[in-house]
Amino acid sequence: MSLPNHFDLVATEGAARTGRLTTPHGVVRTPAFMPVGTAGAMKGMHWREVRNAGADIVLGNTYHLMLRPGAERVAALGGLQVFTRWNGPMLTDSGGFQVMSLAQLRKVSERAVTFRSHIDGLSVELSPERAIEVQRLLGADIAMQLDECVKLPAERADIERAMQLSLRWAERSKRAFETTSAGYMLFGIAQGGDIPELRRGSARGLIEIGFHGYAIGGLAVGEPQAVMLAMIEEVAPILPQDRPRYLMGVGTPEDMLEAVGRGIDMFDCVMPTRNGRHGMAFTRFGQINLRNARHADDPRPLDEESLWPSTRDYSRAYLHHLVKAGETLGAMLLSEINIAYYQRLMHDIRNAISVGQFASFRERTRADWAKGDIAAR
Amino acid sequence: MSLPNHFDLVATEGAARTGRLTTPHGVVRTPAFMPVGTAGAMKGMHWREVRNAGADIVLGNTYHLMLRPGAERVAALGGLQVFTRWNGPMLTDSGGFQVMSLAQLRKVSERAVTFRSHIDGLSVELSPERAIEVQRLLGADIAMQLDECVKLPAERADIERAMQLSLRWAERSKRAFETTSAGYMLFGIAQGGDIPELRRGSARGLIEIGFHGYAIGGLAVGEPQAVMLAMIEEVAPILPQDRPRYLMGVGTPEDMLEAVGRGIDMFDCVMPTRNGRHGMAFTRFGQINLRNARHADDPRPLDEESLWPSTRDYSRAYLHHLVKAGETLGAMLLSEINIAYYQRLMHDIRNAISVGQFASFRERTRADWAKGDIAAR
Repeated sequence: MSLPNHFDLVATEGAARTGRLTTPHGVVRTPAFMPVGTAGAMKGMHWREVRNAGADIVLGNTYHLMLRPGAERVAALGGLQVFTRWNGPMLTDSGGFQVMSLAQLRKVSERAVTFRSHIDGLSVELSPERAIEVQRLLGADIAMQLDECVKLPAERADIERAMQLSLRWAERSKRAFETTSAGYMLFGIAQGGDIPELRRGSARGLIEIGFHGYAIGGLAVGEPQAVMLAMIEEVAPILPQDRPRYLMGVGTPEDMLEAVGRGIDMFDCVMPTRNGRHGMAFTRFGQINLRNARHADDPRPLDEESLWPSTRDYSRAYLHHLVKAGETLGAMLLSEINIAYYQRLMHDIRNAISVGQFASFRERTRADWAKGDIAAR
Repeated sequence: MSLPNHFDLVATEGAARTGRLTTPHGVVRTPAFMPVGTAGAMKGMHWREVRNAGADIVLGNTYHLMLRPGAERVAALGGLQVFTRWNGPMLTDSGGFQVMSLAQLRKVSERAVTFRSHIDGLSVELSPERAIEVQRLLGADIAMQLDECVKLPAERADIERAMQLSLRWAERSKRAFETTSAGYMLFGIAQGGDIPELRRGSARGLIEIGFHGYAIGGLAVGEPQAVMLAMIEEVAPILPQDRPRYLMGVGTPEDMLEAVGRGIDMFDCVMPTRNGRHGMAFTRFGQINLRNARHADDPRPLDEESLWPSTRDYSRAYLHHLVKAGETLGAMLLSEINIAYYQRLMHDIRNAISVGQFASFRERTRADWAKGDIAAR
């Protein structure tokens, strides 16, 4: 049974779509990139800069937040939007992915996943129902069902078992969610690894249950980009046109451009901030490693045509120095430069689709990246 | 022989003074607190926030900058103001203090101090002449003479030897500086440890040489506050009324309030940013430790009457969470909160002196600090 729809498709071009998703805390323009504010904070960025960069929505990690400061505490403090003062739309993951990657001694049963907290070693149980409860306490505009994600490559039997379990958990998640106030949303997550038949089966099972939106999970976990894109091509055409589609944990600018061309509306990834902390800048010219000695005496900015002040105004020499000296400001500047680039890319993609120019925009953008950085001097 | 004067005394109240120091990159309102941007960056703060917080001038560390990125490189890139895009007045220290505290295998001779870089182990010589050259290459609006600072407690003989060496280096520094373009300044540094007679002798020696301004060095190096204030009381009355006085490496808000009352015009200290990184906030209510569990559920801001948005708007609960979780944003917010408090204090001090209300302002401020933080709830 379907849930009410909050997504308006504004324009399409081939499989690419641009739209508006209305949440209790504001409208999200799609395609949208969601910066990841793991434990209620973006690493190295003020919330005001996240907004200035053009983000409509950010992601919080349920696993981190339920362990510290705790979902009940966040609820008592007014919910995640008020607590962090982001005051805009927020999506939370279900916690499942990070239980798998961060927690010790985890055990998956039909009922729930049980694990030891990586913070204090206490045993914690996360069931589909508790995952929904936690996300409601956090106040997520968009909650995600608990699922089980399998690292690729994996055996078909393992992938299928996890996919079927995720479907049963999807159903329980929806039941647990159904009394939530109007406007808040729940997304189901399609699993199925790199096996087309399982991917399609998962998507069909979710549609039968009915969600506000549909995510594709368990990709960008080590498989080649071609496999990821092939799986999107299996799933996206099956999904209802009128509901948003979210490709979880993706990705590079290239990944996102290709995925939009295959019908994806939403993304999240730690890459822009994490790579920023490691001295990498995402620009119109591709990725630039500021540790490289070629930048040490270069007074030119990363991109003199950028509309983002830090990208346009700081010299490569200064950024190189900050990165080499391990100054926090280097990580701060590159994080905002990268988030701004990701948001700019989404903005340009939305505009291109709106005017039916996505295909040529995609070609031009790929060509710019392929050209690479400006010549050293 | 005296150098031209760039300092205008605007008002005095007892020994306390407020004035304006005109540098090639702008006017500095005194009393002034100079945030420390060690290696061309403030830790955890964007330059735009340093300016918004009210700072007129910042400090760069010659020792760090000469080793990395190198003074000649900074000069080729337009000087420290352009390189960092701070674009305002900058004072650099001489490098001497950090040679003593950070470098390995340092050796002080009459000619120079020789040391191994803590970055690459290479041997580097820093003479009074090279210290001036480096600071001119960096483009410092205010350069400091090379001096030798002795950790207290120390033997009188050691203190006196270092003080006399510093005086001879002061003379060589001035000779090396004399061809610098108009508007740029050189400050001498009074040494003499905790011995009144040596302090006075040092100050008189410097005045005879003649500088744009006079610093008091070698304090806040472990001695009680009373000793520091007593040394200021020895030196300040001797110094020319029409020149700025700078108390190096100081300090707490209490230290600064007391020092202003004894005729000091300028300060620098890493305390607001360093303590911020350790979860401490400076406020109207004194210093607050945000690690304390009493803040975990407290929705109130640090100071609801503060004019600084982050001090007024973020809850103690959120700041507590960020600090406990080790989130960079915690260090970033507390650094700007603390720098903003220091700048606000200087602003209020300047206004109080201007209208002849410094004595009552000092009493009221002390009383606020003594009252301590608002009650837990």
